[in-house]
Amino acid sequence: MTQRHTLRINGERLWARLEEIGQIGATAGGGCNRQALTDEDRIGRELFASWCEQAGCSLRRDAVGNLFARREGTEPGLAPVMTGSHLDTQPSGGKYDGIYGVLAGLEVLQTLEEGALHTRHPLEVVVWTNEEGCRFDTAMMGSAVWSGAMSLEDAYALADRTGASVRDELERTGQLGDLPAVAGPVHAAFELHIEQGPVLEAERKTIGVVTGVQHMSRHRVVYYGQEAHAGPTPMTLRKDPMMALGQCLPELYAMTEQHGPDARVTFGFVHAEPGSSNTVPGRLEFTVDLRHPDAGQYQSMLQAYEAIINAAARRFDLAMEYACFWEAPGVEFDSDCVAAVQSAVDNLGYSYRRMVSGAGHDACNVSRVAPTSMIFIPCEGGLSHNEKEAVSAADVEAGANVLLQAMLVRAELDS
Amino acid sequence: MTQRHTLRINGERLWARLEEIGQIGATAGGGCNRQALTDEDRIGRELFASWCEQAGCSLRRDAVGNLFARREGTEPGLAPVMTGSHLDTQPSGGKYDGIYGVLAGLEVLQTLEEGALHTRHPLEVVVWTNEEGCRFDTAMMGSAVWSGAMSLEDAYALADRTGASVRDELERTGQLGDLPAVAGPVHAAFELHIEQGPVLEAERKTIGVVTGVQHMSRHRVVYYGQEAHAGPTPMTLRKDPMMALGQCLPELYAMTEQHGPDARVTFGFVHAEPGSSNTVPGRLEFTVDLRHPDAGQYQSMLQAYEAIINAAARRFDLAMEYACFWEAPGVEFDSDCVAAVQSAVDNLGYSYRRMVSGAGHDACNVSRVAPTSMIFIPCEGGLSHNEKEAVSAADVEAGANVLLQAMLVRAELDS
Repeated sequence: MTQRHTLRINGERLWARLEEIGQIGATAGGGCNRQALTDEDRIGRELFASWCEQAGCSLRRDAVGNLFARREGTEPGLAPVMTGSHLDTQPSGGKYDGIYGVLAGLEVLQTLEEGALHTRHPLEVVVWTNEEGCRFDTAMMGSAVWSGAMSLEDAYALADRTGASVRDELERTGQLGDLPAVAGPVHAAFELHIEQGPVLEAERKTIGVVTGVQHMSRHRVVYYGQEAHAGPTPMTLRKDPMMALGQCLPELYAMTEQHGPDARVTFGFVHAEPGSSNTVPGRLEFTVDLRHPDAGQYQSMLQAYEAIINAAARRFDLAMEYACFWEAPGVEFDSDCVAAVQSAVDNLGYSYRRMVSGAGHDACNVSRVAPTSMIFIPCEGGLSHNEKEAVSAADVEAGANVLLQAMLVRAELDS
Repeated sequence: MTQRHTLRINGERLWARLEEIGQIGATAGGGCNRQALTDEDRIGRELFASWCEQAGCSLRRDAVGNLFARREGTEPGLAPVMTGSHLDTQPSGGKYDGIYGVLAGLEVLQTLEEGALHTRHPLEVVVWTNEEGCRFDTAMMGSAVWSGAMSLEDAYALADRTGASVRDELERTGQLGDLPAVAGPVHAAFELHIEQGPVLEAERKTIGVVTGVQHMSRHRVVYYGQEAHAGPTPMTLRKDPMMALGQCLPELYAMTEQHGPDARVTFGFVHAEPGSSNTVPGRLEFTVDLRHPDAGQYQSMLQAYEAIINAAARRFDLAMEYACFWEAPGVEFDSDCVAAVQSAVDNLGYSYRRMVSGAGHDACNVSRVAPTSMIFIPCEGGLSHNEKEAVSAADVEAGANVLLQAMLVRAELDS
C-alpha cells in the first residue's frame, strides 16, 4: 500500500492531449464543436483509440457506441474499477467538459503501465456516447442505455434535425460495436469532471469531493389576466399577472433561502403578452427551476412553491396553469467510493470541499448499477457550455492524481 | 335660456348612423378596420359629408385633411364653439371610439337646425385626421398639426409600411383641403368620447365630467446579470436580474398605491435572455408606464420609480440602463368648459363622476389653443381598441344631450 502514496501523475502529457484533442472541431472563440457522432466526434475517438494503444489498453465498443479501454487486473474474475466521461461537446462548448475525465482516466492507466504496476481488479476507462444531448435530444444517452434507464431501440430512433438517426450515425462513423450495451458487474466507478459552477474557485479549493447530485425539476407557470389600457384602468380594477409575479418572486427567493445554502431557484424564462408597454398583460408565462440535494428538503420546496404560486393567483383573482415539464431525481453517491476519494485527497494534501453536483452527469446513470462517486476541479468563473471554459494546469494534474489514488483504493495494487 | 333646458336629442338617428358607418370596414368580429386615409376612411368621410348636407351644414377641409362642418351663428365675427373627434379606427378597432363624438356633434347641429334654433356663436363639428396613429405612426396627427404641435411637413412625410405617404394618401383619397391647417380663434371646444376604461361602468355612472388628462410616460429598464447554470451556482454567488425584478415589482406597486387611487403603473413588456429555463438570465428588460393626473404627484412618482430601480440594481450588484422613451405632459381642462359640462349634467339629472382621462385624445391638442373639456360615457367592460367595443343606446343618447347642453351654454341660444 505504500506505493499508492508515492505514485504521481505528472500532468504535462494530459495537458498536451487536452490541447491536441481540442483542435478537433476547434471554434474561432477558443472552444470546441464536436457534437455526438459527427465526423469530428469520430476523429476525436480515433485519436483517443491511438492513445489507448500507446497505453497498452484493449479497446472495445458496445451497441450504442460506448468505448471501453481496459487494463487487465491480476486476479481473474474480479469486476473492474471504472472511470470515464464523454468526448462530445456542445455546439459552442469548451475543451474540458467531459474530455478531461476521459483523458485523466487514460492517464491513470498509462501511468500504471509505465510504472509496471498492477492492480487486482481490472481498470476501465469509458467514453459514453452523446452525453450532451444537443444533436440528439437526450442527454447522457450512452450511459442511460448501458445502465438500463433507456432502451437501445429508443436511443437508435433519436434523430437530429436533418433526420439522421443515432443508429445510422453509429454505423456511418464506425462506432456501432459488438458488445451488448448492458452493464456487467462493476466493482466501483468514478467520474472526474470540471465543476461547471463557481464554488471551488470562490472558496479557493482544489478538489470537490462530490457526495451526490441534486434533486431537480423545471416548471412552467402561466397566469391569465385581463388586457387593459395602462391609463384609464384603475389599479384596483385590474387583473394584472405582473402583480402576481411581484408577489411570487420575492416569496420564492425567500422560501429557497429558508431551505439552506444548497437550495436553488432559477427563473430563466419570462414572457408577457401582448407585450405592449401601455397594455396590462393578458397572459404571463415564466419558468421555475427548483433544486436541492436533500430529498426531504426538495419535496418541501416543491410544496412551498406550489402554495406560493397558487396564493398569488388567488390574491389577484387570476386564472392560472402550471405543470412540471422535467424532473430528475437526486443521487446519493456510494459511501465507499466517496470515502476513497476523501482518503485520496487527504493523502495528497489538497484543499477540498465536500459538495453535491448541481448538474447531471453520466455518473448518475452509472450509480444505478454500480458503486459510484465523482471528483470535481474548479473551472474559471464557473463557466461551462461556453467556448471560454478554462481550467488551470495545476488543478488538472491534482484532479488526475486524486482519481489515480481513489481508483487504487478500490482496485488494490498487487504488491 | 329656458329653451336650453327643454331641448332634447332623441338618440335613435344617432344610433342608426353609428351602425351604418360601422358597416364601412366592418370586421368579422363585429368591429371596424377603417384606418386613416384608406379607401374605407374616404367612404366613411363621404357618408359623413352627406349627413352634413342633410343637417344644412357647410363642409370644408384643411391641408391635413381635417374636416370642419359648420353651422353659422347669428352674430357675425364671433369665434365658433367646436366639438369633434375622429372617424378612423384601429386595424381591429370598435364602432364607437372617435366616431361617437363626431356623429353626436353632428346630431347637436342637426337637432338645432330641425328645431329652427339659432346660436350667437357658430358651431363646428371637426373630424380630425389620423387620430389612431396605427397606419401612420403618430397618434392625434391632424389635431397636432392644427394646434401647432407638429409641422405640416412632418405630417406629410409620415409613410405607412408600403411607403405611401400622408401627403400622397390625402391627395389620392380627395382629403387634401384648401384651408390652412392652422387653428383660428375658438370660443370653446368639447370632445365627447367613450371612456375606454371601466370606471363609469363599475360605479354605475352615466357621464364622466372630464377635468383633465393624466401626465404619463413610458420607461425601459434593462438589468444586466451574469448567465449561470441553474444547478451548480449558489444563490449568493449569482448576479440574477430576476432578483432585482422581484424587489422592484412589489415596491413599484406599493409606491403607486401610496400616490392615491388616480396613480397608475403598468409593466406591459418583460423579456429575459437567453430565456433558457436552466440558465440565470444575463439580461432582463421590462417597461414601466407611469401616470398621474396631478403634476406634483406625477413628479414624485417619477423620482420614487428611479430610486426604486436603482436601489434594486445596487442591492443585487447589477449593471443597469434605463431611459424614458415616451412622455406626454398632463392637461388640465378649461374650468369654464368643465363647468358647462357639469351644469349640463346637473340640469339633465344624469348620474356622473368627475374624472381625468387616462388616455390621450385630440382634445389634448385642441386645449393648447382653445378652452376645452371632454365628456365620457361608459363602455362595456372598459374594452376599447377591440372589436368587442360596446356601449348602450341609453348612454349614447345621454352623452349627446350633455354635449348639446354644454355647447349651448357656451354658444348661447339666440332667443
